[in-house]
Amino acid sequence: MLLIRCKELIIIQANFMKKKYLPLLLTKEIWIKRSQISEKWFESLKNSFCAEFLKLENNFNTEKGYKSVFFKKKKWNKEGSREFGGGISSILKGNLFEKVGVNISTVSGKFPDDFKSKIKGANKDPRFYATGISIVAHMKSPFIPAAHFNSRFIITKNAWFGGGCDLTPTYDINNVRKNFHKNLKEFCDTYNSNYYDVYSEMCKNYFYLKHRNEERGVGGIFFDYLQSNWEQDFSFVRGSGLFFLNYLKDIIKKRSTKSWTKHQRKKLLLKRSKYVEFNLLYDKGTTFGLKTGGNVDAILMSMPPKVLWN
Amino acid sequence: MLLIRCKELIIIQANFMKKKYLPLLLTKEIWIKRSQISEKWFESLKNSFCAEFLKLENNFNTEKGYKSVFFKKKKWNKEGSREFGGGISSILKGNLFEKVGVNISTVSGKFPDDFKSKIKGANKDPRFYATGISIVAHMKSPFIPAAHFNSRFIITKNAWFGGGCDLTPTYDINNVRKNFHKNLKEFCDTYNSNYYDVYSEMCKNYFYLKHRNEERGVGGIFFDYLQSNWEQDFSFVRGSGLFFLNYLKDIIKKRSTKSWTKHQRKKLLLKRSKYVEFNLLYDKGTTFGLKTGGNVDAILMSMPPKVLWN
Repeated sequence: MLLIRCKELIIIQANFMKKKYLPLLLTKEIWIKRSQISEKWFESLKNSFCAEFLKLENNFNTEKGYKSVFFKKKKWNKEGSREFGGGISSILKGNLFEKVGVNISTVSGKFPDDFKSKIKGANKDPRFYATGISIVAHMKSPFIPAAHFNSRFIITKNAWFGGGCDLTPTYDINNVRKNFHKNLKEFCDTYNSNYYDVYSEMCKNYFYLKHRNEERGVGGIFFDYLQSNWEQDFSFVRGSGLFFLNYLKDIIKKRSTKSWTKHQRKKLLLKRSKYVEFNLLYDKGTTFGLKTGGNVDAILMSMPPKVLWN
Repeated sequence: MLLIRCKELIIIQANFMKKKYLPLLLTKEIWIKRSQISEKWFESLKNSFCAEFLKLENNFNTEKGYKSVFFKKKKWNKEGSREFGGGISSILKGNLFEKVGVNISTVSGKFPDDFKSKIKGANKDPRFYATGISIVAHMKSPFIPAAHFNSRFIITKNAWFGGGCDLTPTYDINNVRKNFHKNLKEFCDTYNSNYYDVYSEMCKNYFYLKHRNEERGVGGIFFDYLQSNWEQDFSFVRGSGLFFLNYLKDIIKKRSTKSWTKHQRKKLLLKRSKYVEFNLLYDKGTTFGLKTGGNVDAILMSMPPKVLWN
């Protein structure tokens, strides 16, 4: 029986009362422990991101003489015919962050038939457990890239981590790309000298708009089915969160002072249309989530607040 | 050999030089004739819609003291490895019509393997010919519904018409629904007393956002695989174009005088986010077209020009 004692509880006890929906691994003490630790990490990372974002936003507001703003939180629970779980969506709409959403969720259930063959370890037994965090920030300034980060821990008959981070700048694209990837490589190399090459390539291939023959942004890293050594993998996942939080803080601080023209702002809003196209046409989390009855608000948190199409 | 003598020519001769991509039916005189007649009709309907829209727009501009605007036309040709054809996209961006796109196109080729089993008559022989018109209007006023119309004539080992029209109002939804469907029923009943019931139900089911459990708009009619008697079917298709053109003219004229508040305009822009979600997640023409190398500008002409997400 899984018990969570955090104050901001993702109510997953319901899952554990529906034992038939739990993957077999989760009946073993060690995997219960690992799922608990992962959930707690994602929750604590959520708190760190929210706190830093709020500080950046309200420092900016104080400087500019704007009112302070705050995160709005929505908890959701689901007890469906195939899935049980819940999560928390935290959304901030401000003057620096036009819209930033931080989602955590824990769900267990059965993958649909047409999906299970695509997931490692789910072909014969479609039961799964998944916990994770997902962050998308759309900035008001055309000079600060949109940012995306996520980590997840998934258990079927296998168990693995997935995740990644990437940036989508509208201006100064080459510099953003160069600096971000230099820092990503340094971060990855402290774990494994192959990680950067493999995961940045995966990211490049994933965040790609085939119909336009262009990348969504400047890429980053993207990894999946990470299951070498659990402790090491978990350490890399934690590291990726802290790396991205720090990197983002820096880039936002550096770029938040520059003012912009109407034309530059328009270019940002047009760029966002491709973000929407990617998420609704290709992003597996979005399309799978929406088509299988996921939490609509949490999934569509990634949508930019204001978008133009040509 | 198909020859087209219209001034605004959809250059499909290229197709007909690649005979291996033509469905067998198109080697028969009668089907060549029917494809020609259909193409000409879609082109003439395009001209009628464009002329009426331009008149409405520029009358509005004259009244309000705005400058006149005009349609921008883009021709495109495609000679790919599986598809040959071309089309014309006409786009108007004005003060009454925030953005309206009128597309005609004629393409022949081979359906991709994972698609051909879904198309009548294409399972064993994936070759197809398709000609059609598609219109999407997004209005500046929150009181005028967004409008969508399309007709297509498709030949595989079968040959049939498809098409439909629907409205997406932001305000006064019940009245728009009632009046539109009353008129649609009257129109349909002059052809076949079953059409309205069947096609309005098909429309309701098609333009549905499953993830939100809501209709995109107030529906309309939607038909496919119409192949009872070619002359009668073609007459119904022509009728649907003329019906919708007249209906739209009326509703725009009636509703274009009412001014709106910032709040009402915001509600329109939020409503449009669902239009985008539908088109990119569910609309078969859009997703199939984009994923199989269709003309991106022509396909995404349906995107609203300005959109808000909550």
